Amino acid sequence: MTPVVGRIAVLGLGLLGGSLALAARRRGVAASVTGATRRREVLDEAGRSGALDRATPDAAAAVRNADLVVLATPVAAMAGVLRRAAPGLREGCVVTDVGSVKAPLEETLPGLLPRGVHYVGSHPMAGGHEGGFRHAREDLFEGAACVVMTGGEPTATGRVVDLWRALGARVVMRDAATHDAEVAWVSHVPHLLAFAFGKAWERAGAGAAEVRGPGFRDFTRIAHSDPELWADILTANRKAIAAPLQAVRRALEQLEGALEAGDAESVERSLHAARQALAAEPIRGTDAAPSHEPPTAERSGGARGDNSP
Amino acid sequence: MTPVVGRIAVLGLGLLGGSLALAARRRGVAASVTGATRRREVLDEAGRSGALDRATPDAAAAVRNADLVVLATPVAAMAGVLRRAAPGLREGCVVTDVGSVKAPLEETLPGLLPRGVHYVGSHPMAGGHEGGFRHAREDLFEGAACVVMTGGEPTATGRVVDLWRALGARVVMRDAATHDAEVAWVSHVPHLLAFAFGKAWERAGAGAAEVRGPGFRDFTRIAHSDPELWADILTANRKAIAAPLQAVRRALEQLEGALEAGDAESVERSLHAARQALAAEPIRGTDAAPSHEPPTAERSGGARGDNSP
Repeated sequence: MTPVVGRIAVLGLGLLGGSLALAARRRGVAASVTGATRRREVLDEAGRSGALDRATPDAAAAVRNADLVVLATPVAAMAGVLRRAAPGLREGCVVTDVGSVKAPLEETLPGLLPRGVHYVGSHPMAGGHEGGFRHAREDLFEGAACVVMTGGEPTATGRVVDLWRALGARVVMRDAATHDAEVAWVSHVPHLLAFAFGKAWERAGAGAAEVRGPGFRDFTRIAHSDPELWADILTANRKAIAAPLQAVRRALEQLEGALEAGDAESVERSLHAARQALAAEPIRGTDAAPSHEPPTAERSGGARGDNSP
Repeated sequence: MTPVVGRIAVLGLGLLGGSLALAARRRGVAASVTGATRRREVLDEAGRSGALDRATPDAAAAVRNADLVVLATPVAAMAGVLRRAAPGLREGCVVTDVGSVKAPLEETLPGLLPRGVHYVGSHPMAGGHEGGFRHAREDLFEGAACVVMTGGEPTATGRVVDLWRALGARVVMRDAATHDAEVAWVSHVPHLLAFAFGKAWERAGAGAAEVRGPGFRDFTRIAHSDPELWADILTANRKAIAAPLQAVRRALEQLEGALEAGDAESVERSLHAARQALAAEPIRGTDAAPSHEPPTAERSGGARGDNSP
């Protein structure tokens, strides 16, 4: 396939950055892929892997001549790495990121860019509890939803959409506030609940650990995620997390009340409602299916779905 | 293999009863397998499947001449089915069950048995959110923990232990109260949290559903379980559920407090502790590994692990 996005620079080579670099190069999505990390052992590992055209510890050097720069560090580190990279950014370059929280980044990152460089945030809903470059996979984004921010400069937005589609993702358009509210629901609150369960699990005896089954394993899997990364994400999105968390707390209190009263019928009604709510299929925008056809910014703007004009 | 448990009767042909019947027959664990259910369509399906030597709607007829009877209905229905079966039970027969809650059954079931018939409860930590005979699998118990109750008549206990080992399960011995407390931790509270999340999910928009990823799918999988079955289990074990649920609520409140204060370091410490607690390997009794060697009741009594003399 003809490279759809020219030269890419990926700043941060963890699971997401590494997978993006690997996928972009192997699929011929980019003319070249440069990776940057200040972590020496990751730099060596990435260099040896052959996943990159070039690996460097210098962010400004990595982005020189890049058409598209992807920030793939933890959210809290993005402003710092962009500040270091900024002197190397050339006019016409587009900057995106893979962070789990978008409104705080939209407030901070554009102000760090030189003239003629545009920022359009994105968030691929992919990953795994085992992080790091060594778990990077070429197919990580295949079939995953990737949320791309609306409201950005149209050509820049089109380039970011093109990238994710070429990597096999299903692009969904959202504004930053909507994105943050939605991922609080689908990702941050589940992580918070699984982590809270894990913290409480300290009090469970060794005997309980002996009788764990597959349900336990699946329910707690996300609580094996990187604590530093997730403390960062949860703190950054704490405002959007409040509402769904309160809704869960209320549902839990209502269930507890019915249990204490021994009201099995009321418990069953709640459980039934829960299962039904989870089983409901989302209404998808007509443009949300994976496509390798390069869209125009206008068409991708049309994919924003049903929640904003 | 020589049948280790003679003639088996399975009362209730859902996922667990169906899988047990299938596995016992195909592995030659039992000399014969009779299944009973009053649900006509399941009876027909089970008959057609060839998984059973005989299928009947009559519980008393099913247990006639059985050496081992397995109750595999929902917990709340077990006393009723045992009452119907009791006239058919012959002296020397052993009755067990696959229910998720044990103390209420130990209080009720033994009083329903004729002289010379012993009850020893068991609970295989296996299943799936898709229930019913049509999802029954011969390998469902392979490698799963199966908790068998201590304190029962020794020969009867040995026969129940033999059954589960022959089906490939790792037998763990517990008294009923300990079992109920442990499964509250590993199964009931996770289900309750996932169900509460699912109930709250009614308030999430269609947009959120569009950006779900693999973490969401795993976290919510157990909330797709059968509502009637789970209302029954949660209500029956509500006393044992209270303590772990309170521990989770406290951990959640502590995390929320740290988030509201924007204290990312404290959040990270909790997340780290959670991950570490979950990653800890259980201490296993030396006799807990799967074994097809028929144990004596004395030896299986020794498999109870580290929590009782």
